[in-house]
Amino acid sequence: MSATPRLFVDGDLGEGCPVAMSGDQDHYLVKVMRLRAGDTVRVFNGRDGEFLATLHQDGKRNATLLAGPRTRVQAVSPDMRLLFAPLKKTRTDFLVEKAVEMGVSELWPVFTDRSDAERVRSDRLQRIALEAAEQCERLDVPVVSEAQPLAQAIIRWEPLRTLYFCDEAGDEGEAPWGGQSGRAPQLDAELAGTPRASAALLVGPEGGFSPAERNWLRSLPYVRPVSLGPRILRAETAVVAALALWQALAGDWSRR
Amino acid sequence: MSATPRLFVDGDLGEGCPVAMSGDQDHYLVKVMRLRAGDTVRVFNGRDGEFLATLHQDGKRNATLLAGPRTRVQAVSPDMRLLFAPLKKTRTDFLVEKAVEMGVSELWPVFTDRSDAERVRSDRLQRIALEAAEQCERLDVPVVSEAQPLAQAIIRWEPLRTLYFCDEAGDEGEAPWGGQSGRAPQLDAELAGTPRASAALLVGPEGGFSPAERNWLRSLPYVRPVSLGPRILRAETAVVAALALWQALAGDWSRR
Repeated sequence: MSATPRLFVDGDLGEGCPVAMSGDQDHYLVKVMRLRAGDTVRVFNGRDGEFLATLHQDGKRNATLLAGPRTRVQAVSPDMRLLFAPLKKTRTDFLVEKAVEMGVSELWPVFTDRSDAERVRSDRLQRIALEAAEQCERLDVPVVSEAQPLAQAIIRWEPLRTLYFCDEAGDEGEAPWGGQSGRAPQLDAELAGTPRASAALLVGPEGGFSPAERNWLRSLPYVRPVSLGPRILRAETAVVAALALWQALAGDWSRR
Repeated sequence: MSATPRLFVDGDLGEGCPVAMSGDQDHYLVKVMRLRAGDTVRVFNGRDGEFLATLHQDGKRNATLLAGPRTRVQAVSPDMRLLFAPLKKTRTDFLVEKAVEMGVSELWPVFTDRSDAERVRSDRLQRIALEAAEQCERLDVPVVSEAQPLAQAIIRWEPLRTLYFCDEAGDEGEAPWGGQSGRAPQLDAELAGTPRASAALLVGPEGGFSPAERNWLRSLPYVRPVSLGPRILRAETAVVAALALWQALAGDWSRR
């Protein structure tokens, strides 16, 4: 596709002002993207909207960008926080990329009783989130928190932020051949008629939640256990499916 | 998770009957899954439902499975055909895995003007589909067709099968900074009130569809161009998001 490349930058942006580039961004534009003097890129910083910028080159070494007209005004993403248990590396990377495309505003890695990893490189996931934001036309980049135990993450919870808890793998664990007992309501039914508000989504590890975690979560007043259809979805699939329903029914896909 | 392992088999299944295993399935059960005599697996063949089966071992070499009680009766997946343009290898693999989890009934790889690959190993994708079906608790395995050009795939189309055509990347190509002209309706709006019926979804390559393809697709009476929110989704993300909405609003997530 021939769309103008898009770059997240740290500094302030304004028409006619030079664009401050960090680290190796100038190198990236010239050596990786192979842009030349006069070529344009789109730049955004999460605050000032998006601008068209033109590359100026001083000899072979110094590339600078000059911001031209603003192409989009800043928009705020719906307030959707994703809590997810780390998975194996490739699947965690996919989960983060997909969550950014699907418009989450914050990413909170949480350790659960059965989560696969004991360590999460949040800086690495933040870079994946940034690249996904550049690619999917977002105007902001969701922040990836440091990983923490699930209990610590939700001990001081805003009471008005509903936490949708994908409880399907857990049910499966207890009734391995399709038992329907204790089945949580479908997310789409739970969302029908929901006013637009702050929300959060909790998706567990491949092994599901432990019985103790499930009982504890279900006892919390702001937690809503939900199902996502009759099949068992992998964690990264559940993230996209749940966010599609939430964005369509209560987020920024709807025109309400 | 301690759920009983699940295995797709070719032969007929019935309580008390031996389970015919193909290829290296006996090897897989004993050497990879490390099952021993008396251990149980669940088996399904896409026709007879799911059975609990017990491993019998004759010396070290011959493992046989004997079917016990039926654990689930056969269910038919909603009739949703996915047409997708091949992507780079890992993303195609993910797309197929996700589509199976999300309950498609057929997978049709199609070549488009801008698709990345010139060759598709349908047998490889079929194996990925089978493993995803085993993992996600499906009772059937969707068939992966041989790849064919898009025009050939839809030249003899069933007129009552609506083809939802994800048209977002195309719009992006024409109006690279957020122009909304010609924006297709949101899929969820398009699906509201739709009766349960055969349907299909078409998701293009990373580069989107060519202007000629878009014009042609939009001219076909059974094609509905649809959007999936304000961000540009990668192909494999679009597959999950669109199928989540379809399954919730017109497929087997809803209780209508």
